[in-house]
Amino acid sequence: MSKATIAVIAAVSAGAGAAATAAMYSLRSADKKPDIQTTTTTTTTKTVSKAAPIPPSQVFTQQTTTTSTAPLPVPGAVPVPQRTSSPVNPSGLFEYGFPGPISDIATRAALISSFDRRLRNPQWVVEHITADSLAQRDGDRKNSAFLEDPAVPDKFRAKLKDYFRSGYDRGHQVPAADCKWSQSAMDETFYLTNMCPQVGEGFNRDYWAHFEDYCRRLTTKYPSVRIVTGPLYLPRRDPADNKWYVKYEVIGNPPNVAVPTHFYKVIFAEEDGTSGGNGNVALGAFVLPNAPIPNDKPLADFEVPVEAVERASGLEFATKLPVARRKRLCAETSCSIVVREYAQRQQAFAKK
Amino acid sequence: MSKATIAVIAAVSAGAGAAATAAMYSLRSADKKPDIQTTTTTTTTKTVSKAAPIPPSQVFTQQTTTTSTAPLPVPGAVPVPQRTSSPVNPSGLFEYGFPGPISDIATRAALISSFDRRLRNPQWVVEHITADSLAQRDGDRKNSAFLEDPAVPDKFRAKLKDYFRSGYDRGHQVPAADCKWSQSAMDETFYLTNMCPQVGEGFNRDYWAHFEDYCRRLTTKYPSVRIVTGPLYLPRRDPADNKWYVKYEVIGNPPNVAVPTHFYKVIFAEEDGTSGGNGNVALGAFVLPNAPIPNDKPLADFEVPVEAVERASGLEFATKLPVARRKRLCAETSCSIVVREYAQRQQAFAKK
Repeated sequence: MSKATIAVIAAVSAGAGAAATAAMYSLRSADKKPDIQTTTTTTTTKTVSKAAPIPPSQVFTQQTTTTSTAPLPVPGAVPVPQRTSSPVNPSGLFEYGFPGPISDIATRAALISSFDRRLRNPQWVVEHITADSLAQRDGDRKNSAFLEDPAVPDKFRAKLKDYFRSGYDRGHQVPAADCKWSQSAMDETFYLTNMCPQVGEGFNRDYWAHFEDYCRRLTTKYPSVRIVTGPLYLPRRDPADNKWYVKYEVIGNPPNVAVPTHFYKVIFAEEDGTSGGNGNVALGAFVLPNAPIPNDKPLADFEVPVEAVERASGLEFATKLPVARRKRLCAETSCSIVVREYAQRQQAFAKK
Repeated sequence: MSKATIAVIAAVSAGAGAAATAAMYSLRSADKKPDIQTTTTTTTTKTVSKAAPIPPSQVFTQQTTTTSTAPLPVPGAVPVPQRTSSPVNPSGLFEYGFPGPISDIATRAALISSFDRRLRNPQWVVEHITADSLAQRDGDRKNSAFLEDPAVPDKFRAKLKDYFRSGYDRGHQVPAADCKWSQSAMDETFYLTNMCPQVGEGFNRDYWAHFEDYCRRLTTKYPSVRIVTGPLYLPRRDPADNKWYVKYEVIGNPPNVAVPTHFYKVIFAEEDGTSGGNGNVALGAFVLPNAPIPNDKPLADFEVPVEAVERASGLEFATKLPVARRKRLCAETSCSIVVREYAQRQQAFAKK
């Protein structure tokens, strides 16, 4: 744990001027519990017993209980006579429609994405790569075009015009290069529901691309690699008042799409090649600032405990993966990028 | 519409130094479509056909379709031979658990709340008030205590210590004063899942309290009033570079709970006293900055189109309420606060 915590702190200073502040999330986890945990998602919903029910799609429950009007215990509260019936019915509001939030989940052959209607970014995008899938080369990105996703209602949709002249790249979360196995798969990666505004030079076109290449190279060691990628919006401490603030740009006119401060990847490298089996899984989590990163910065500096990504994103990863099956990716492999100096190679080639 | 849009613009300058910038949301709606709409929530999810399914609780679908690997049409893309099988299976990731996001929905007698695990604030809290419910006075807030909500997993929970010495009030979204009809109902409003960090002086203890009182007074005209309340995090334009930024504080050590920049209320005043009937409903939406507001500021200045709240929150309100049943609250009633100068009254009373 302390190793991982130190890595996070290192990552904080690593951002080459960016506000990398994932530290407080992992520091707290270091205080309280080990990084690896086996809790399952707890139930947090009770069903409504009268009038309009909460839509089944919004009920996150494993064991349904009916609502009772019995008071929940309040420390220090004076017991009062118990009313047996309520004069109001809050759930009647749902007759007018359930407010949400709805995460638009797109299930495609190449990826599965969950879209945040408020920030107009994906919350996560899931992919799967193998040596075989990467070896197939039927798709070419010059045949693909960036696309608004019509599955998202218009008023919540990220638009091409939001990105236009914003100064940010339309940054793939699942890389196009991971889906060359068919043109249609590659095309699917070009939906804006797979895209976040990313700093181009020094990040999306450089360090982040090398990081994506690192993920692909894992398939030489592991028969199956699964990756979850998504944005983060992390606070940084303002030295002026010593308080923590989240600050991010919103692009578009009117402003529409949030610019994440950081990106995460949670990587599952499967030793036996299946997620449903009993084989070991090498887990790695990384948080990188949305900013230029020097190529000589070690990738391991950006390694964080999985729980740090969970606290920062509000999501949970690997809750059903037993501790006994987990390994630490950066202990099993060398977590380092290989910088391919494309420009230099091109020049060398041209001189031949 | 232009009236409403002007109101929003007025509200922008109304924040008494606060960053009230709901404008761009309503301005865009003014460009494109009328405020009142009857669209229902569209389906955005396809089910996965193999391996681990997306949990039913996460599938927001009205009509289930099975996934096909057929490519979606890409404008300008060159047709390529169609692969009949995929070499990968992204949904296998869900064998390790579904990432979420989960909104923790608490269904209580007094309120229903939906909690945002990332920002550690509610997304919305729903209540219902009537003249009868307000007339019953069995609860007293001096018997209630603020409570962390154990229904939210520890790592995503708002904590009492996050608020301690933060400089912000633990601001009720459903007011305690709306739930005097029983002590247990009032107690329920004291869960932190019903709370957001609010500026105390000049806002939570003043203008916002007068606004809550306005809502209660609606029960003298309408037999049933439903209110949805929640936080917003709105961008403002930085004059230095003319770009839009969202900036908010995060309280706690380590930082844990976001401080909203604004708050909304969407009010449904039901003429026939039921949500399930066919009576008319007077709809009003308001966005107020989380900042001191002078008491002489007209409440009507903060009225916004419902769609402005929807765009800013990513939520949807009243999608199932037909246009024919809708009225505009601020046209049906006087949208104005009544400032009760408690301190002055107390003084006057003491002198008698």
